[in-house]
This record gives sequence, structure tokens and C-alpha cells, in this order.
Amino acid sequence: MIMNRLLPNLHSPEELRGLSLPELETLAEELRQEIIQTVAVTGGHLASSLGVVELTLALQRVFPTPHNKIVWDVGHQAYAHKLLTGRLKEFGSLRQLDGLSGFPKRSESAHDAFDVGHSSTSISAALGMVAARDTLGGTEKVVAVIGDGSLTAGLAFEGLNHAGHLKKDLIVILNDNEMSISPNVGALSSFLSRKMTSDLFVRFKRETESFLTGLPRFGKDLLNIARRAEDSLKGFLTPGMLFEGFGFNYVGPINGHHLDELLETLENVSKLRGPVLIHVLTRKGKGFLPAERNPALFHGVGPFNPVTGEVPAAKAGPASYTAVFGQTLMALAEGDKRVVAITAAMPEGTGLTPFAAAFPERFYDVGIAEQHAVTFAAGLACHGLRPTVAIYSTFLQRAYDNVLHDVCLQNLPVSFALDRGGLVGADGPTHHGVFDYAYLRHLPNLVFMAPRDEDQLRRSMVTALQHDGPFAYRYPRGNGLGLELSENLPEPLAIGCGERLREGADGVIIAVGSAVHQALEAAQLLEEEGLQLAVVDPRFVKPLDRALLTAEAQRTGLVVTVEDHVLQGGFGSAVLELFADEGLSPTVLRLGLPDAFVEQGSQVELRARYGLDAKGIAGSIRQLFPERISRHLGCATAP
Amino acid sequence: MIMNRLLPNLHSPEELRGLSLPELETLAEELRQEIIQTVAVTGGHLASSLGVVELTLALQRVFPTPHNKIVWDVGHQAYAHKLLTGRLKEFGSLRQLDGLSGFPKRSESAHDAFDVGHSSTSISAALGMVAARDTLGGTEKVVAVIGDGSLTAGLAFEGLNHAGHLKKDLIVILNDNEMSISPNVGALSSFLSRKMTSDLFVRFKRETESFLTGLPRFGKDLLNIARRAEDSLKGFLTPGMLFEGFGFNYVGPINGHHLDELLETLENVSKLRGPVLIHVLTRKGKGFLPAERNPALFHGVGPFNPVTGEVPAAKAGPASYTAVFGQTLMALAEGDKRVVAITAAMPEGTGLTPFAAAFPERFYDVGIAEQHAVTFAAGLACHGLRPTVAIYSTFLQRAYDNVLHDVCLQNLPVSFALDRGGLVGADGPTHHGVFDYAYLRHLPNLVFMAPRDEDQLRRSMVTALQHDGPFAYRYPRGNGLGLELSENLPEPLAIGCGERLREGADGVIIAVGSAVHQALEAAQLLEEEGLQLAVVDPRFVKPLDRALLTAEAQRTGLVVTVEDHVLQGGFGSAVLELFADEGLSPTVLRLGLPDAFVEQGSQVELRARYGLDAKGIAGSIRQLFPERISRHLGCATAP
Repeated sequence: MIMNRLLPNLHSPEELRGLSLPELETLAEELRQEIIQTVAVTGGHLASSLGVVELTLALQRVFPTPHNKIVWDVGHQAYAHKLLTGRLKEFGSLRQLDGLSGFPKRSESAHDAFDVGHSSTSISAALGMVAARDTLGGTEKVVAVIGDGSLTAGLAFEGLNHAGHLKKDLIVILNDNEMSISPNVGALSSFLSRKMTSDLFVRFKRETESFLTGLPRFGKDLLNIARRAEDSLKGFLTPGMLFEGFGFNYVGPINGHHLDELLETLENVSKLRGPVLIHVLTRKGKGFLPAERNPALFHGVGPFNPVTGEVPAAKAGPASYTAVFGQTLMALAEGDKRVVAITAAMPEGTGLTPFAAAFPERFYDVGIAEQHAVTFAAGLACHGLRPTVAIYSTFLQRAYDNVLHDVCLQNLPVSFALDRGGLVGADGPTHHGVFDYAYLRHLPNLVFMAPRDEDQLRRSMVTALQHDGPFAYRYPRGNGLGLELSENLPEPLAIGCGERLREGADGVIIAVGSAVHQALEAAQLLEEEGLQLAVVDPRFVKPLDRALLTAEAQRTGLVVTVEDHVLQGGFGSAVLELFADEGLSPTVLRLGLPDAFVEQGSQVELRARYGLDAKGIAGSIRQLFPERISRHLGCATAP
Repeated sequence: MIMNRLLPNLHSPEELRGLSLPELETLAEELRQEIIQTVAVTGGHLASSLGVVELTLALQRVFPTPHNKIVWDVGHQAYAHKLLTGRLKEFGSLRQLDGLSGFPKRSESAHDAFDVGHSSTSISAALGMVAARDTLGGTEKVVAVIGDGSLTAGLAFEGLNHAGHLKKDLIVILNDNEMSISPNVGALSSFLSRKMTSDLFVRFKRETESFLTGLPRFGKDLLNIARRAEDSLKGFLTPGMLFEGFGFNYVGPINGHHLDELLETLENVSKLRGPVLIHVLTRKGKGFLPAERNPALFHGVGPFNPVTGEVPAAKAGPASYTAVFGQTLMALAEGDKRVVAITAAMPEGTGLTPFAAAFPERFYDVGIAEQHAVTFAAGLACHGLRPTVAIYSTFLQRAYDNVLHDVCLQNLPVSFALDRGGLVGADGPTHHGVFDYAYLRHLPNLVFMAPRDEDQLRRSMVTALQHDGPFAYRYPRGNGLGLELSENLPEPLAIGCGERLREGADGVIIAVGSAVHQALEAAQLLEEEGLQLAVVDPRFVKPLDRALLTAEAQRTGLVVTVEDHVLQGGFGSAVLELFADEGLSPTVLRLGLPDAFVEQGSQVELRARYGLDAKGIAGSIRQLFPERISRHLGCATAP
């Protein structure tokens, strides 16, 4: 391993100007080692960050921040950026509770131009900065760095289209690694892969040349003409065609790991006016052979051996919710030809890889295109199929209107499998799935379940397939409880049918989804202190089990709702609506997340911090019974 | 005027096969007259529908529905489609309460393949149908008809990209009228306008020909070669370039008003495999000179004179909220250079046309690209400006995640001027702005106002500009109350500061936005019956005026909330949350819209139907006081 020499002494990106090319290359190696060593411990987005080490160096050398602005798309590739901009010492806290974010974050550093986490926002945001700069009269450069995968999303296209229209000085770097998280999808990727280019070009060349060489004289001159024409043509037929068409000056493709080539290109481009797109070819995982060989594995990875790249086998434990979902959907598909599955560039993350292998004709990876995923599903559904859109809760936010306008309005039987509902952990505020009850429960026609365990997840799925309308079910990131699942699929549930899991006369905890088990534990803790809390799982966030909830409220007069979701407009809010509609006025304590974005941290840490683990829930309930608790604790705490 | 002869006798689109070309042309004229005569009375989307009369006929002749599927993008151009598919007799009820929808609607006719109203969904939906067809083994054709304006939205691009990837048989008709609602925006439109094409082509031709004609011999042959090369080139350099790049077979451009050309092309295309894009040039308002001359006026128009095209001058009356917004933003911009305005293809509809004329450098029309509009605004805001995104409530649904992830997460000072909040009228379920409280109020950092009149709208705007974070204000479609507005802008409000508008000891009505005035009238009606209801306008949906609302609830013990919004997750739900947090249990009656999509109808009709006019509100409240009311009415109703 190389000794760190340059990196610790670098105080600002401006100092890169003083380094020679060999020194910059050494620095690249230092950055790589730092990233590999750290991510080997913390886990994180390794492959993307290794792929842009040289690009980051070159950008900071030519366009140093914070004067200039670099807008990283998605942002999971910004580790070298963080290291070059004063965050070497804290780098070990990457993605930990209260540590460095895994993404650019304006509140973390003036060098971070734009907060990010979801993909495809960079061109739009950078164009906004460019327009503001020109209004305010600044001289800074604004650079958006976007991967070929992110370019699939419509938002990126909207940004390109507007940028071409405005004709302002904007630099877009297309970081083309010919692979987003999964193999790239869509016609666009063949555009970029230059396959079409060469096909057309070869055809044109062959036709022209054979005609020209057949002429008796001037053959040589004609070939020269033809070659000159070819040169003109090349400008049209390279991948640049698309971008030139949108009004961009296209430069490239260039090798993203050759610092000299990058520096020269960026210096040249810094003198160009108008929108420029630089096509840079990079390799995910560059410089760490295991990651180069298996970039999908090292896209987002847990701790690994920094020498061998060995990733410790997952501890034997319960299957993840994601895996149970994938297996169950396969079982449903075997029994019903109408079942088809859709992912937006996350076949692995959503557990659909086995489904894709088993039913290739009934599986659609639409690329990073959440809006299309949902409207496409609506089209499938109104033509007789039963599509399931498997998507992270946080990413379905990008298709809110498609769910409303294309699915719910027509009452179409599309199922939404919302993975990563609730607190997700290290990815932090951009990725927590803590708004879904609120943004979905007001949609007419939608049925919305939140299974508390893997068995209930299966019941949700069976129920969804039987239901003749839109249906969402939301489950958490991570492992199930390890319940033994029967070979046969369970029976569907009646819509809106909840379940009382525990008796208790002193009050009722109505908990939903993964909060149910924290609530059961809390009830157990409280029982030891002499409080008897019932626990109800309504199973359905919409429609609520009106009879059950009403009866429990009337019986006990005290209701505590628990959800891993913001309190505003959430599950507890729905319960309050129900009681108001029924003319009931029980005391209601709502436990959930506050009206703020939730930081990164492990699920366990965050639940503890927000009082949503068993201890926190029990503590909040205990305060509702000051007299009984002080009596109970009296012996120990009395003076 | 031509006598209707063919149209009334047409029982199914299949019968078009039996008509000659001259008969089809007569039918086109009949359709036009029927559309003009009807829309002259009902109002509606005239220009778009007149532009596709021949296209509709040709499509139904070659691909008759309901066997084949025609997916109309946006859907406001489908009047001829409705007339050809059995809806002539009801056509006079177009856009009226309980009448024919102004858009395709599956529940209205088997000939309508997909419900629509928002733009740019057609390719995605049609692709879903195509995939389902191929899974189920059908033979029907699926055609998406999309305008050049709708193509600007990222969703359309996502659909194109996936369609090119899947390579299934899909027909996309690009209905290119070189104008969406407003002059088209974006680099894409120059792509389509063939400007770039001809520039490049002319340059290439000039360079080549001058070289060739300079050669002593074979000049003529060489010119032939060059012309042959030109032909090859044309395939690359026409507007088709973009679509070919995405894997579509490109056909066109063809004249969309020549039935013979349309029929021949569609017949030929029906034999092609894979995705095909037919580029059809049409003229908005075709066949009605006033609409051809002023297609923007006749895009969505009220009643007019069907002979002269004269549109009656609006009755002298109060200025619309939209106009007050536009004027106030100009006043704010005069005093603050940071103020910039953004619209997504609706400068007229959002009242920004005068702003655009006065401050062209501070005005951005991004085209139909709501996601980009918001993220672009985030970029402007984090670079020092104070952007206002002026947008209809229903269309901001398309940018929910951009508001959340790009604006609120970074607490950026972007203002959202939500026009058409609440019930909008004839456009119906796709356009009512009745979900915005629910989809926005749970977003951390957002301040959300709902001004009750035009004066309060101005106060909202002043308050928004002063506030250093995200800010939304929502106002209704239509005219203000006619309040006299002072020359000077009002003072900003303290955030979260409500107002008691009327005293009353029997209970309090907490109404929000345009519901406030219905509530005041209701209180007046009830007073005549002896009930004293206070009326409070919280002004802020978020944060609520905790002190005021708490005090009112404690004082009266009875709270009635009123909103022109769905009840689920809405304003009343926020009030319930507040009371629960404060440990209060007043009786709360929530008035608003039910958990269903609201049909079309005038605002007055719909308010009456849903009990949200003064009479309805008073009636609901009256039922809370059975004894007092029966006593009050006793003399009259006693036997």
C-alpha cells in the first residue's frame, strides 16, 4: 500500500494547480486506496466512486470548487470529491450515524453544490445555477456529471431539452460506464454504445465506396471526397448525434482514466460557449480488480476484504422481505398467467432477478424511469394483465401522479410492492421511505397494506392479486422475522380486515407494518410494570378496520398509534379521521417521526433516537400513566 | 352549412370501410361542423379537435376501435373520436355536469382505450397494451397519438426509450402542429421544425456540390452520386433522426389534412413490424378560420359565435386570481432583482404573459416538463435567486418528488404558486386540484398558505418572498371577490398566523382558502336560525395557528372544518392532529370531498352536490344541533 503523502497536505482544490501530472497520478492512487480502505470497513458505493477518481481530480484542477459548481448526479460517486475537499479526517464516519453523508450535502460542505440521492436531477439543477449566474453576473463554471444510467430518466431529458433551448454556458459530463446499477436498459443505451453509429456508418461507407471505386477515373480523388464527406458524417453519426440535436456541442468520447486527456479536454472546453456535453468513458470499480470484475456486487456493498475483495457471506438468518417478495411473486406467476413484474432498474434490489430468469417474457426492466414504469403498468392492466411494480418506497415518489392519474383514476388492478418502507439506514434522508402512507392514502380506489412480517407480506400479495383495483403493500428493508412459511400460498384477506394480537384493558396500541413488533415488545415491557396494553395490527392503512378500531377505542378510551413514518398525514392521522367520523373522542397518542427529514444511521439507531423501538414506545406510554407508574416504581425511586 | 347525412347513419367505425374517399371527406366536414356548433355553445378544446379530424377518420378507417386501441395523449383532441364512436346524440352534453367528458374515458365508451387529461402518458400506456397483447396473443393494433408539445415531457421520452428497447409492434403518431398550447419550447421543437435539418443539409450540400462542380469531368455523374448520397443523408438528417436513434421506424412527415395520404400511409404502416413513428403535420383549428388564425385563443375556449368566431368579451367583473397573481409578481419583481418566474408551458393560464414581456430575462417557460421546472427552480434558488413556480395544483402532482427531494430537503426558497386549487369545473377529475393539501403538507420545511381572497393572495406572495425556505400558496380557478386592492403591496404575515373573522359562541367553523367565504355565508344563514358560529381562517395549512385553533376549540367545544379538498389527509386531518397533540377532544365535523374522484361540472354545481356551498355547510352544521333547530323551526313544522 502506498503511503499517503499528497492527500493529507492538500488544503483546498485550488492547490491542485501546483501539482505535476505524475503527482496528480499519485494522488489518484492515494484517493483510490483511501476509498477502498474506508469502504471496506463502512460499506458504501464503491464501484461508482472508483470509476470517477481521475475525472474528479481533473474537474477540481480545472474548475475548482467552491467557486465553480460541480453537480454530481445521484451523488453516490462523490467519495473522491469529499476527500479532495477537506473531508479526509472524517472520512471514516462515512454513512454512519452523525457522520459524513454518502452523498453530496450542502450543509456538510460549501464544495457540495446540490443535495442529491435520487437520480437524474443534475442537468436541471445545474441549468438553474447557470441561469442564476447569468442573471447575477458571475463567472463561475457549472458542471453536471451524469451517468449513462441516469440519462434514461425523463427528467434528464427535460433538462437537456431546456438547456439546448437556453443556449447558456453549461458543461454536462456524461459519465458513460455502459452500465448503471444493472445492465443498462433502453434504446438510448445502444445509442451510446455506438452500435447504431457504426452500423449506419459502415453501410453508408460501403455503398458509397463501391460506387466510387467502380468509376474509371478520378477514383482516388473521389475517395478523398468521400472521406471528407465521411468526416462530416461522423459528426452526425457518432453518439454525439443525439446531443448535437439537442443543441449541445458534443466532445468525445474520451478516456476517463487518462488524466492528461481529461485535463486537456476540460481546458479546451472551458473556453467554449453554450451548452457542451463531454462524453467520458469510465470503468466502474477501476483500480480494484474485484470491483472491476463484479461492479454490480460492489455498487453498494457492505464491509469486505480490501485486499482480496472477499465479501463475507451473509450470516445465516431469516430471508429478507425482498427475497420473500421475489419468491412469492414467482409462485403467484406460476399459478396465474396474468402476473407480470416491472422494475425501474432495480431487478436485484427488488428481488426480481429469479423472476426475470424464470419468466423473461413477463418481466420488464424499464431502466431508471419510474413514471413510465407506472403508466406502462396501467397499460398492461387495462389490457388484461396483473402487473406488479416492485419499487422502493422513496422512488415511487417520482411517479405520484402516474399512480393517481393513470392507475387510481381508472381503478386498474396494478399492484405496488413498496420495498424499503420506513427507515432504511445508511443512505439517509433521500432514501427513507417515510412519506408513503401520506402520499398514497388519500388516493381514491387504492387499497394499501403494511404487512408486519414475511407471512403477512405473502398474504398481502395474494390479497392484491385477487383484488380488482389498485393495491399497494409496503414492507421494510432487511430481514424478516424468520417465520416458517408454509409451502402453499396463504388465503387472501378480506379487504380492510385487521387483527388483535394482544389483549389488554388499559389501552390499545394500534401499530402498523414493521412497527407492530416493536409495539408487541413494548406491551411486554409495560406488562412487567403492571400496565396491560392491547395491540392491534390493522394490516390495512386503507381502508382501516373501522369496526375493530372503533371497538378498541370504546373499550379502552386510550389509543396509541405507532408507525415508522412522519406523523403528518400518516397512519395515526388516518386513525384520528376515523374516530372523528365515528364521533369518538378517545385519548390518542401518535408515535412516529417528526416533521423533519430523518438523518442517516442504522435502523436500530434511528428507531432508538426517535423513540420508535420497544423501549421508546414503552417510555412514551408510561408517561400517560404517571400515577400508576410512580406507584409501581415507588419503592425504588422514593427518597 | 352542410346537412348532416353521413354521421347520424354511422353506427360503428367499422362502417367507414364502406365509404369512398369523397364520402370520407364529406364526413370530415360534417364532423367539423358538429364540433364547431357544439363547442360554440358548451365551450371546450376546439382547436386541437379540429386539427385531427382527418387523422381520426383515417385511424378509425384503418384501425377501427374497439378492436384496435387508439390512445389519445392529453385527450382534449378526441371530439371527432367521440362523434365517430356512437356519441353524436349526447354530444351537446360535452363537459357539462353528468354529461360527456371532454376527454377519453373508459367508463364512457369501449372505444376509449385509456383515461387521460394530463399529457405525455400515451406512449407508455400504449406500450403496456402492446406488451399485454403479445403476452395474451392478440392481433389488435395499438396506436398512440401524441402532440409535439407533449413530447417535451420526460415521461414521453421514457416511453420512447423503452419502446425502442422492446421492439414490439407499436404505432406512434406524432401530431405535429408546431405549437402546443403556447409556442413550443425546447431544443426538441427545433429538431422537429426541420430548421436544424435544413441548416445541416444545406451546408453539406453546398460544400459537396461546389467541390464537385469544380472538377473538370464527370461533373454530372458526380452530382448524381452526390444526390444519391443526399438521399442517404436525408434519412439521417430529417426529424426522423431522433426517432430512428431510439429504434423507431420513422415515416413522414405527411400532411395530416390529406385523407388519401393518411390512408395510404396507415395501410402501409399496418404491415410494418416493430415500433413505427408516423410524423403527421396538422394545423390547429383547421377548417375554422378564426381558430386557425388564433389557435391559442381557441385552445380551450368558452362559448363563441360559430360563424364569426367572435368570443363575447368577459363580463366586467372582478379580476381573476390568476391575473392578480401575475400583476403582484411583477410588482415584487420590480422591487427585488432575485424574483424570477417559471411556467411549464402555461404562461397564459398562469397569468405570467405580462411578466414575460416585462422581464424576459427573468422568465422561463420550460415546456411541458413539470419535474424539470421544479428542479430547475431549486438550482436557481441555491444560487441566490427567488424563483416562483407558477403551476396548476393538478400538474404539480407530476413533480412531487422534485418538491420533496430537490427543494424541501435543502430548505430552498422556492415558491409554488398553485393555481386552480380546489374544484376547477368542466375539465373534471383529471384537473381538480383537490389533493394538494394532502400531498404537500407532510413535507418537512414547507410553509403552505391558502389565501381566501385576492388580497390575501397578495399577502401570501409577499410573505413567501420574505421567507427563507420553500413556500406554497394555493388559490382557486376563477374571479376574486372584487376587493379593492391598495396600490402598495401589503405587509408580510407572521408565519402560521391565522385570523378570526367572525365571533360566535356555539361553535367555530375553521375554513380554509376559497371555502372561507362559503363558511362566512353559512354562519350568516345559521345566525338567522339562532345559531352563533365563529369563523376562523387559519390562512396557513402548514404550520397551523396552534394558539388560535386551540383557544377556539377550548372556547366552543365544537369545531367544523371546511375545505375544497378530499378529506383524507387534508386540512381537517391536520386540525385533528393538532388537537390530538394538544390533548384536546372537541367535537370535530370535517366537511370536504369524499374519498372518490370528483366528476366534471361547474364549480357552483359541484359545491352544491358535495355540500360545500353555504347552504350545504349550514345544513351539515344544523344537524349538530337537533334540539335547538327543531325548537327554532317549531312553530312552522309543528302539527
